[in-house]
Amino acid sequence: VVCRGLYRALSIREKHMQRSLQRFPKTPSQYLRAIEGEPWKPSDIGPVFTPPVKDGQDPFDSGDLPEDLGYHVQMKDGVVYVYADKAAAARNEPKDLPYPSLEHFVDDMNFLLVLIAQGPVKTYAHRRLRFLSSKFQVHEMLNEMEELKELKSNPHRDFYNCRKVDTHIHAAACMNQKHLLRFIKKSYRVDADRVVYDAKGTQLTLKQLFQQLNLHPYDLTVDSLDVHAGRQTFQRFDKFNDKYNPVGASELRDLYLKTENAINGEYFATIIKEVGSDLEDAKYQHTEPRLSIYGRSPAEWAKLAKWFNTHRVYSPNMKWMIQVPRIYDVFRSKDFLPHFGKMLENIFVPVFEATINPQAHKELSVFLRHITGFDSVDDESKHSGHMFSTKSPKPEEWSSPKNPSYTYYIYYMYANILVLNNLRRQRGMNTFLFRPHCGEAGAITHLLAAFMTADNISHGLNLKKTPVLQYLYFLAQIPIAMSPLSNNSLFLEYAKNPLLDFHQKGLMVSLSTDDPMQFHYTKEPLMEEYAIAAQVFKLSTCDMCEIARNSVLQCGLSHEEKVKFLGENYREEGPEGNDIRKTNVAQIRVAYRYETWCYELNLIAEGLKNE
Amino acid sequence: VVCRGLYRALSIREKHMQRSLQRFPKTPSQYLRAIEGEPWKPSDIGPVFTPPVKDGQDPFDSGDLPEDLGYHVQMKDGVVYVYADKAAAARNEPKDLPYPSLEHFVDDMNFLLVLIAQGPVKTYAHRRLRFLSSKFQVHEMLNEMEELKELKSNPHRDFYNCRKVDTHIHAAACMNQKHLLRFIKKSYRVDADRVVYDAKGTQLTLKQLFQQLNLHPYDLTVDSLDVHAGRQTFQRFDKFNDKYNPVGASELRDLYLKTENAINGEYFATIIKEVGSDLEDAKYQHTEPRLSIYGRSPAEWAKLAKWFNTHRVYSPNMKWMIQVPRIYDVFRSKDFLPHFGKMLENIFVPVFEATINPQAHKELSVFLRHITGFDSVDDESKHSGHMFSTKSPKPEEWSSPKNPSYTYYIYYMYANILVLNNLRRQRGMNTFLFRPHCGEAGAITHLLAAFMTADNISHGLNLKKTPVLQYLYFLAQIPIAMSPLSNNSLFLEYAKNPLLDFHQKGLMVSLSTDDPMQFHYTKEPLMEEYAIAAQVFKLSTCDMCEIARNSVLQCGLSHEEKVKFLGENYREEGPEGNDIRKTNVAQIRVAYRYETWCYELNLIAEGLKNE
Repeated sequence: VVCRGLYRALSIREKHMQRSLQRFPKTPSQYLRAIEGEPWKPSDIGPVFTPPVKDGQDPFDSGDLPEDLGYHVQMKDGVVYVYADKAAAARNEPKDLPYPSLEHFVDDMNFLLVLIAQGPVKTYAHRRLRFLSSKFQVHEMLNEMEELKELKSNPHRDFYNCRKVDTHIHAAACMNQKHLLRFIKKSYRVDADRVVYDAKGTQLTLKQLFQQLNLHPYDLTVDSLDVHAGRQTFQRFDKFNDKYNPVGASELRDLYLKTENAINGEYFATIIKEVGSDLEDAKYQHTEPRLSIYGRSPAEWAKLAKWFNTHRVYSPNMKWMIQVPRIYDVFRSKDFLPHFGKMLENIFVPVFEATINPQAHKELSVFLRHITGFDSVDDESKHSGHMFSTKSPKPEEWSSPKNPSYTYYIYYMYANILVLNNLRRQRGMNTFLFRPHCGEAGAITHLLAAFMTADNISHGLNLKKTPVLQYLYFLAQIPIAMSPLSNNSLFLEYAKNPLLDFHQKGLMVSLSTDDPMQFHYTKEPLMEEYAIAAQVFKLSTCDMCEIARNSVLQCGLSHEEKVKFLGENYREEGPEGNDIRKTNVAQIRVAYRYETWCYELNLIAEGLKNE
Repeated sequence: VVCRGLYRALSIREKHMQRSLQRFPKTPSQYLRAIEGEPWKPSDIGPVFTPPVKDGQDPFDSGDLPEDLGYHVQMKDGVVYVYADKAAAARNEPKDLPYPSLEHFVDDMNFLLVLIAQGPVKTYAHRRLRFLSSKFQVHEMLNEMEELKELKSNPHRDFYNCRKVDTHIHAAACMNQKHLLRFIKKSYRVDADRVVYDAKGTQLTLKQLFQQLNLHPYDLTVDSLDVHAGRQTFQRFDKFNDKYNPVGASELRDLYLKTENAINGEYFATIIKEVGSDLEDAKYQHTEPRLSIYGRSPAEWAKLAKWFNTHRVYSPNMKWMIQVPRIYDVFRSKDFLPHFGKMLENIFVPVFEATINPQAHKELSVFLRHITGFDSVDDESKHSGHMFSTKSPKPEEWSSPKNPSYTYYIYYMYANILVLNNLRRQRGMNTFLFRPHCGEAGAITHLLAAFMTADNISHGLNLKKTPVLQYLYFLAQIPIAMSPLSNNSLFLEYAKNPLLDFHQKGLMVSLSTDDPMQFHYTKEPLMEEYAIAAQVFKLSTCDMCEIARNSVLQCGLSHEEKVKFLGENYREEGPEGNDIRKTNVAQIRVAYRYETWCYELNLIAEGLKNE
C-alpha cells in the first residue's frame, strides 16, 4: 500500500510536469512505465530555452518576431483561455491547448495530503531516508580517497573553473552592500545636479534629495547604509524587508533599486550591469536574478520590458526570472484591485498577448526571450487560514481583503503557466519554468503544492519536517536551491541547516545567495556561500563540484550552454551523463548516486509486483 | 589568598614583560602599585618598532647603520652574554645588561603551577569568567542598538575601511591555493627552459623538472596541487605538514616556497610580493608573515637576509616575523647538531653579532629592521615527557636525541630575546616581541610559559580548559591571535571554537588566517575569516570592528602607523584611547570593556585590603 501511494505520487508529478512542459527525469518515468507494464519511450516534450546569443547577434534584436495570430485571450475562473477570436470566446470554444482541471488537481492534492500523513508511509519514508544517510556515510568512508584520486587525475578542471549558477537571487539585492555604497557615492560625484527624483510633483536633484534626507554621500558607510541583515532580523521577515531601504529611506530604494522612477531605473540597470560584468570577468559564475511583476496593473510588463530594452540589461552570465510577490491583500486593502482574478489577469494576460502578437509588443517579446521562469515570493510564515479546495471561491470571486493561501497562489500561477507554455511552444517560443520559493517557513502543504506544480524550488528547509515529501523530492530529484546564509539570518542557524543532510541523502541541492546585499560580506557572494558551506560542513571537493553541477542542471541556461558546461550527454542520468572533464565530479560519486536512486525506485516497483 | 595569588601572578608577568621590553598594560600596573601602596609612574620602557619607510626612502638602505661596538658575544648555559671583549669574557665580566635568572624563572613558574591547580583559585576564576559572560550578554541586550546607532552616525568609516591585521600567518602559505596554481602555470610559460633545480648535482630546467615528476603544469588543478587541508587532516598535524608539498612533491616546495634553492628563492619572493601588492590594493589589510630560522646552521640568517635584500621583499602592508620550529630532535637524530645549545647559538648569536657590528652584516641588519618578533612553532600535541626545572640539563648539556619540552624551548627563546632586546634598545635599534604559537593543543603548561614570557600568542584554544589562566589572560589583556578556520581543519570544529566565548568575556582576541594556502577558498583570506566568523557566531559590526582594532593593537606595526590607523591616543586604555572615527568601535563598547576590566582588577585590590 505504501508503494502504491508513492507510485501514484510520482505519477501525479510526472503528469503535471509533462503537461506544463516542465522537467521530470527519465529514470523514474521508466520505472513508472515498468510498473504499469507499458513500454517506455523517450518523451520529446519538455521546456524550451532560448539559445544563447551568438557572436555578432544583438540580444535586443526584434527583427525576427513572428506574425500576429489574431487570437483573443480571456480569463475564466483565474485561467487565461485562448480563442481564435472574440466570437469563439462568446461561444466558449477555446483553442485546442491543454487547460488545467481544478477538480483533478484538487483530487490529486487531496490524495497526496492523505498520503503524507499516513503512518506506514511515514515510517517507510523515514526508514529509507535514514538508510540513505547511512549508506552515503559508508560510501564516503570507502570511496572518499578514490573520488579524490579521480579528481586529482582530472586535468585542468577544479572547483574554481567548474561552472556554478546562483540559482536563487533577487535582482534588487544582487550587488553586495559595499558595491551599492560605492555606486551611490560615485553617482553623487557625477550626477549631483541631475534631476533624479519626483517628490509628488517637485523635481529634486540628487543633491537636493540627499539634503532632504540630511545626508551627504561622502559620509555614508555600510553601517549607515544599513542594508545588511543582523541579529535583529532573525525570525523577523518584516524587519528584513525594511533592509531593502538604504539608510532606511524608501526614496533611495526607489532611486537605486527600482526600475520605475524619475530616471527610468537607469541606476538600477547600471548597477546590475556592473554585477554582470564582474561575473563575466570571473567567467565561471552565472546568476538567475528575479525581477518583480506585482500584478497591480496590466502596464507593469510593458514598463519592465521597456526598462530592460532601453538600458540593454544583458549579460551572458545572467538568466532572468520573474518573481510575483504574494501581496494581493496589500493591494486589495488599498483598493488597487477589485479581486484576485484581476491580479492574475495583470500578471498573465500581457504575456499571452505578446505571445500571440509579438509585433505589437516588441519590447516585451524580446524581454520574454530572456526570461526563463516564474518565482512566487513572500513571507511563507504568514498563515492565511484559507484551505484550498474545489469549493474555494474562484479568483474573480475572491474580493475579500484576506490573502489567498499559498497553495491557491501556486495553483493559479501553475495553471496559467501551463497554458502559456503550450501556446509558446506551438509558436516556437521559449517556455517558462515554475520555480517558487517554497518551504522556507510555514506549513508543509507548501511543499506539497510545489511537488505537484514546480519544476524546482528555492529553500525547501521544511522538508526536514516531512519525511514523505522529503523522500518524494528525492525520488523525483526535484532541485532545491538552498541558501544557508540567508536562512542563518532569517530562519535557521547555520549549523542546523539541513543542506548537508539533504546532500548526503542524495536530494538534488544547489547553493544560492538569495540576497548578497543583505547577507554577504565579500566581493564574490556565491564563492562566499560555497566557502562557508565547505568549511562548516566539511565538504569535499567532490561534494562542492557535485553541488555546482546540480546548480547548472537546475537552472534555466539553454541546452547549448549546458552542453558546453556539463558535456554532450548531460541529459543522460547516471554516470553516462557526467563528463568529469567539465564537471569535476568523480564518476564513482555519480555512479553511487544513480545506483542508490535506482535501488529506491526499484523497491517501489518490487513492492507493487506482489499485488 | 586567591587575590594574593592573582596579584602575584600579574606581578610576575609585569616583571618579565618589562625586563624583556615587551608590553604590559597600564591599568593593571596601576592596580598593582596601588596594592603595593606605591605611586604609579608611567614607564617609558617598552618595545621599539622601526618607523615606517618614508616616501622616497629605500627600505633596503644600509647607509645609516651604526658603527661597530667591538663587543664579544658568547653563549653560556643557553643564553648569549655580551662582553666588552674576549678578555672580559674570559674574566666572566659581562656588560651591564639585564640577564635572565633561571632560578627566579623556575620559582615563578612553580608558583604559577601551584596557583592554577588550587581549588579556591579555580572556583574564583571560573565564577568570574561566568560572570563576565553573562555581563556581556546583558550589555548586548541593553546596548546593542545604541552601539549600532553610534556606528551608523560615524561618518565615512565602516568595517570595510577599518584597518585589520592578519596577526598570524606563515609566509610559505600566505598565498591562496589558486594563486599558487596560477603562479606555477605562469612560471612555466615564461621559464620552461630555465635551470631552476639542482638534483644532487644535475641541473634541471623547469621543463625537465616537471617531466621528471610526470606532470604538465597546464593540466595542474587545485585538486592535483593538493595543498588544501581536507577532512583527512583533522587531528593529523603530520598529514597537514605534508600539504606544504605541492602535488606531494617536495621538489616543488623547494622551488616555489623556499628561500634557498637553485634560483635563490626568486619564485617565493615574487609570489610573496604579489600577495603584498594585492594587500596594498585592498589598502586596509596588513599581514605579519613568518619566515623560518631553524637553528641548524649559523649561516641561515645571512642567507635569509640575502634573499630578503636581493629580491627586495618589501611591502608597506607586511611586517615580518621569524618562526623557529621546535625540531631539535630531528636535527639531532641526523647528527646535524651536537646539542641543543648549538641550536640556540645558531638562532641567536648571528643576531647579536649583527646588532654589535651592523657594518659587517649589512644585509642582516637591514633585514632585522623589518623583523618585529619571534614565533615558536610546531605540533604542540607531541608530548616531550621532560619537566622543566632548575635541574634540567643546560642546553649545552642537552645532547640526548629527545626533544626538550615546550617550556624549555620557550624559556630559552625568551631569555635570549630579553638580552637581545636590551642590547638593541641601547643601540637605538628596534626590539622584538615574543609571540609563540601556544595552546593550539597539548598541555596547559604551554599557556603558563607564554603567560610569563610572551607579549602575545597565537591560537590559545586550550585556555578553554584552564579557568585560572583564562582569567589571567583576561586580566593582563594578553592578545590572542585566533584562527578558527585553521582549527576547524586541524583541531576543533568551527562551531565549538572558543573565539566567541573569549570575545564575549573580554579577552583580547584577533582573527588571523594561519595558512591561506591550506584553509581558505577566496582571494581575500582575511575577509573570508572575518565573514565566516561573523556568519557563524552572528557577530555585530561593533564586534567585528573591535576584533579588527585588537589586531592592530596586537601586531608589530610601528607607533606611527598605529597612530594613523587607531588615532593619537591609541596607547590610552579605555574610551580615551579609542578614536571611533578611525576604529569604528562604539565608545559604549570600549567603556563597557574598560569598566569591566577595572572592576575585576579592583576586586583583587579590595580582596587584599583586608589583609
